Amino acid sequence: MNTFFRENIEAMKGYTPGEQPQRIGGWIKLNTNENPYPPSPAVCEALQNIDFKQLRLYPDPVCCELRKTIADLYGYSDKNIMLGNGSDDILTIAVRSFVPEGGYIASPNPSYSLYPVLAGIQGAECINIPLESDFSMPANFAELAKKASLIIIPRPNAPTGTAFELEKMRNICREFRGIVMIDEAYADFADDNCVKFVKEFSNVIISRTLSKSYSLAGIRLGYVIASEEIIYGMMKVKDSYNVNMLTQKIALAALHDQKYLKQSVAQIREVRKYLTDALKIRNFTVIDSQGNFIFTAPPDKDGETLYQQLKEQGILVRYFPGKATSQYIRITIGTKSEIDQLLEFL
Amino acid sequence: MNTFFRENIEAMKGYTPGEQPQRIGGWIKLNTNENPYPPSPAVCEALQNIDFKQLRLYPDPVCCELRKTIADLYGYSDKNIMLGNGSDDILTIAVRSFVPEGGYIASPNPSYSLYPVLAGIQGAECINIPLESDFSMPANFAELAKKASLIIIPRPNAPTGTAFELEKMRNICREFRGIVMIDEAYADFADDNCVKFVKEFSNVIISRTLSKSYSLAGIRLGYVIASEEIIYGMMKVKDSYNVNMLTQKIALAALHDQKYLKQSVAQIREVRKYLTDALKIRNFTVIDSQGNFIFTAPPDKDGETLYQQLKEQGILVRYFPGKATSQYIRITIGTKSEIDQLLEFL
Repeated sequence: MNTFFRENIEAMKGYTPGEQPQRIGGWIKLNTNENPYPPSPAVCEALQNIDFKQLRLYPDPVCCELRKTIADLYGYSDKNIMLGNGSDDILTIAVRSFVPEGGYIASPNPSYSLYPVLAGIQGAECINIPLESDFSMPANFAELAKKASLIIIPRPNAPTGTAFELEKMRNICREFRGIVMIDEAYADFADDNCVKFVKEFSNVIISRTLSKSYSLAGIRLGYVIASEEIIYGMMKVKDSYNVNMLTQKIALAALHDQKYLKQSVAQIREVRKYLTDALKIRNFTVIDSQGNFIFTAPPDKDGETLYQQLKEQGILVRYFPGKATSQYIRITIGTKSEIDQLLEFL
Repeated sequence: MNTFFRENIEAMKGYTPGEQPQRIGGWIKLNTNENPYPPSPAVCEALQNIDFKQLRLYPDPVCCELRKTIADLYGYSDKNIMLGNGSDDILTIAVRSFVPEGGYIASPNPSYSLYPVLAGIQGAECINIPLESDFSMPANFAELAKKASLIIIPRPNAPTGTAFELEKMRNICREFRGIVMIDEAYADFADDNCVKFVKEFSNVIISRTLSKSYSLAGIRLGYVIASEEIIYGMMKVKDSYNVNMLTQKIALAALHDQKYLKQSVAQIREVRKYLTDALKIRNFTVIDSQGNFIFTAPPDKDGETLYQQLKEQGILVRYFPGKATSQYIRITIGTKSEIDQLLEFL
């Protein structure tokens, strides 16, 4: 029978969305790294100021004002910025730009499970390069990735929370001949980041999102920072109107309220420290986290058992099957009260 | 020099967005087929009812409520529906699902200029099959397309406004061995449509959008109707959270107000008739339009000259270079007052 689909698509598993209980009530939801605090009040105001009549028009396809605002935040030009319908869109555009059918992506393992899926859709393969046993970056990463045309490294990494050493990251950018995309979805929660690499290397792309630190997963906005040449080429691949009008207006308001961002991030870092200490007292193994989540292994059971026990209590966390990860669960940093309810059960 | 990009991307021209004057004032904008009327008042209400605090959460990745609503409109199941970030996203997903690198898409010529671009991004080629001189569908279309794995036919066609004969469309679906995607972006303005083809043929995909008839180009919502098997496969290719939370809520409100849609469409069809008659009196060649625009050739000059003259008067229409189209301009159906200002100049 003719299935119509390309072989690589046909061979893929069906899409299974993560657990997103659409009824929020009753659950303590610490499983998808959403921010527990609401977005900036400036977002509320921006939403109220939208004239619904304007929605009949197409949005600005190149998002001039928003790109300028982001560029100013980091000391780059708007020609160094491209926007996407969430980081997912950005990652898809990168794969389509740099990786041919039959080509290779490389990423660390464990890491964000979307990267091999994106390779599969493109008809490419993902080289999964094992991290060290403490989840640090192996020194020969670039060497192991050399067949690939695109490396994707999340920093801080998910689900481990690890921020790989800056000098190791620099070595990879220097040694690798293709594009190094650094997925900084969680970088606002970290002590440092790689944004300045764009000035140091011609092959680096930094990816960011408003989903986590800005509490705006619902609007879908991601962006990249890269050289003008790279942005020019990636703009050919994106859908013309990939960022809708409402998202552009709301993101603009949120980005202008940097004070609120800093407060929100500070709160999460404080609760992260509180949870880390509390887990250590309970003899959990805790990987030092630079994200808005903690990767931790209980002393007396495996990750899946604890995941199930918590779920029975109405607490959703994330469990990742697989040799390197099955002892662990990933806990999103919620409010202090949510974390206290979790600790009470533990 | 290593450009990093795939050869097909490197070879493409840089992206040039259409004329979207971001200052609306002063222009009569009849160039991008936007609806001149505002969206339903239900959209205004939906927008006011959005709790900005909810934006911290990811949207429903499979858009349950919205898919059910659309399915009910046409007598299909929600498993026959997939949503996209505008029709652009839907078209991109279709190309990635069915067309390998080095493969072929087929589409009529003249037609929507995005199809060859999408082929280029995929590393595939677009077979442009010439329409007859009256812009009708040639009888041997399927035969000419046989190398392709995906045919895309807009019906009504853009920029001509032609709704190809239903029996010719059926013949193509019957004879062609790959997927036939019928892009019905303008179908709400037409006398008939191909939605029931999904029940007649296993290889048909109908694509729709809320950008035109629902006056919601700003929110980016497109959808497809197809067999459960096709939807299941295409869902693997889409980005997980491709439709944001605001768009889901607003689209739901708009789709529930079918009475408003019918009024808006009736007004546009009335002005379309009015403009058609007025142009014919002025000895313009007018192609019978089933869309919210008219493709017309002036009696005494070429399309580009008239386009320029109108632009000097602050009236934006669309001109398409090329042998089959250069005598014509495409005029979006505006309000009666906008059309009267256009006619006054003509």
